[in-house]
Amino acid sequence: METTNVKKEVQVINAEELLTHLKGHRKLTRRTIEIFPEEQLFTYSIGGMRSFAELIQELLGIAAPGIKEIATGNPAELQENFDHQNKKANLLEAWDKATVEIEKYWLQIEQERFQETIKSFGQYEGKVWENIFYFIDNEIHHRAQAFVYLRALGIDPPFFWDR
Amino acid sequence: METTNVKKEVQVINAEELLTHLKGHRKLTRRTIEIFPEEQLFTYSIGGMRSFAELIQELLGIAAPGIKEIATGNPAELQENFDHQNKKANLLEAWDKATVEIEKYWLQIEQERFQETIKSFGQYEGKVWENIFYFIDNEIHHRAQAFVYLRALGIDPPFFWDR
Repeated sequence: METTNVKKEVQVINAEELLTHLKGHRKLTRRTIEIFPEEQLFTYSIGGMRSFAELIQELLGIAAPGIKEIATGNPAELQENFDHQNKKANLLEAWDKATVEIEKYWLQIEQERFQETIKSFGQYEGKVWENIFYFIDNEIHHRAQAFVYLRALGIDPPFFWDR
Repeated sequence: METTNVKKEVQVINAEELLTHLKGHRKLTRRTIEIFPEEQLFTYSIGGMRSFAELIQELLGIAAPGIKEIATGNPAELQENFDHQNKKANLLEAWDKATVEIEKYWLQIEQERFQETIKSFGQYEGKVWENIFYFIDNEIHHRAQAFVYLRALGIDPPFFWDR
């Protein structure tokens, strides 16, 4: 019997691993929201920057709608505000809903789509993987800013490596 | 003539793209060091955190030695300080040398190695891709803290998306 000797190329990182990576970051960001004092969440700022609640709303406006757009092909609109009524619980609820949405739509993305070029939110052109990396990097970036807010408020942030 | 119909699996992200991604982040961090006022680079802090120069030294201690270790298999040691003599130019020089090292050793890493499990710096166990993602995420995290320092000092940081 002859065997065809085709070496299957190993993935640098496969889609499932990338989802796990993303979910690990979302868990850490969730913990950062939980630790943040409720009042300061909506008011505290350094150097004229946005409050952590505003940064969270930006993140909510990007990752879940962006991944839904990638999976379905239906254009997403940037929407960075919602009526949270200055309640931490409402931000956390929105965060958890977004995590469920991300997982649901992620599983509908075929592996080969990651190399496709798209225009996310009608304006950000790049490969699917580049868009997703941007979503993750942007979350790390804004959460790190919240870590500084916490330190300035005398509160220990969670461990960066604990996902 | 018969053809073997084996569908080649498309990479979510290939090794070259991941290097380009990493180098984009290093460029942005370099620009952040350049913009930072020289004196405050070594002294400025919020909430008891490390100065940006100390954070930069941590990053210098991780990415280039870590990638060299992955490529060569020779154990790396965590070394987070060097004699920079409180000069921004010395940090920038070290940064550029590290970027050259990273590129040199990166090109020696075979694609299938990214799924291998290693123990980086003799203690951090994980797949090669996980280690590399940690290097990148940690850089984004610490640079974001420097962005807050800059804002607090009344200086506009570079654009996050401009790599």
